[in-house]
Amino acid sequence: MRGRFITLEGIEGAGKSTLMAHVLARVGARHPVHGTREPGGTALGERIRALLLAPGEAPMDPTAELLLLFAARAQHLAEVIRPALAAGTWVVCDRFTDATFAYQGGGRGLETETIAALEGLVQRGLVPDRTLLLDLPVAQGLARVARRGGADRFERERAAFFERVRAAYLARAQAEPARFRVIDASRPLPEVQAQVDEALADLLGEGAR
Amino acid sequence: MRGRFITLEGIEGAGKSTLMAHVLARVGARHPVHGTREPGGTALGERIRALLLAPGEAPMDPTAELLLLFAARAQHLAEVIRPALAAGTWVVCDRFTDATFAYQGGGRGLETETIAALEGLVQRGLVPDRTLLLDLPVAQGLARVARRGGADRFERERAAFFERVRAAYLARAQAEPARFRVIDASRPLPEVQAQVDEALADLLGEGAR
Repeated sequence: MRGRFITLEGIEGAGKSTLMAHVLARVGARHPVHGTREPGGTALGERIRALLLAPGEAPMDPTAELLLLFAARAQHLAEVIRPALAAGTWVVCDRFTDATFAYQGGGRGLETETIAALEGLVQRGLVPDRTLLLDLPVAQGLARVARRGGADRFERERAAFFERVRAAYLARAQAEPARFRVIDASRPLPEVQAQVDEALADLLGEGAR
Repeated sequence: MRGRFITLEGIEGAGKSTLMAHVLARVGARHPVHGTREPGGTALGERIRALLLAPGEAPMDPTAELLLLFAARAQHLAEVIRPALAAGTWVVCDRFTDATFAYQGGGRGLETETIAALEGLVQRGLVPDRTLLLDLPVAQGLARVARRGGADRFERERAAFFERVRAAYLARAQAEPARFRVIDASRPLPEVQAQVDEALADLLGEGAR
């Protein structure tokens, strides 16, 4: 039976890395599971990620950035995600195409139609079975990032940018309620983990499709 | 007045590098000129080029390859080509989008419609004013490459692949006779240079548009 595809989304400081470990443990107790991330997830993808995140580059053309993200995603799907799902392994991915709609679409103002066209080209109908949107106020997320230091190019963007990203994420969640679960990531960790457990209960209880 | 945009195309061993110097000297005698190449032409583009040409990588997904090529092209247009043309500098580029149609379309069998959609997204109507297609039999081109050694990933592809690439190039030249000039690159260098001079005469004699 085909594995399920779960994605974690959210702005900087939402706690994706911490929750990723929780989701992997929860899913891994019942199914073979592979944790991965975007941009990245393959040797080529990690090299593309380095191009995208390197501070101090010449200004990157927004369309070039968008195409790099989808190039990494195409490789990730071909080399990792599709083979894993076909083999019955569940895949949990830290960020996927919703992040592109939120950051490049909502944040940078690239046309949604362009992103959707690239999504169709690269994914050919494959979409996550469940997307957990870790939502919290931008100021709270940025305060967490500041505490851990080491902000990269995206993380140094200003708060107004992240407000647009957050709004784009929430709009997508509202448009696709069957796939999305909005998690209140402003709460203490045990409460957030409980929300995540509930957001996965139907998938994990259901077994094979 | 806007500069003109000239591209050089052809299969491996057609002599693009040698003819590039000739074209730059010829144009440079009359106009400010900038010589560049694809994939590459910018710091980001050269890093993408390294990803594309590195031998020994895991198999690259064809769609990932296509998106990397257009990512490099988007940056090249934004950072180099458009500003140069707007400033009145002529631009001579060793390979451009015709190479993508020939190699990824003709050679690897990716859909022409997909390539055309990415061309539209990235170029927004900007096409070369003149494209010189250096044409020669595949066996002759590959023999030249073998003599100079150091074949990269593309150059190690088999002859049948290059036959498809050459056919795709020739089909494009036939479809756009006003833009293309087909140069018989199998001839001795002075004869090839004479053909190139003739192929540029109208552009160079014409002056400003």
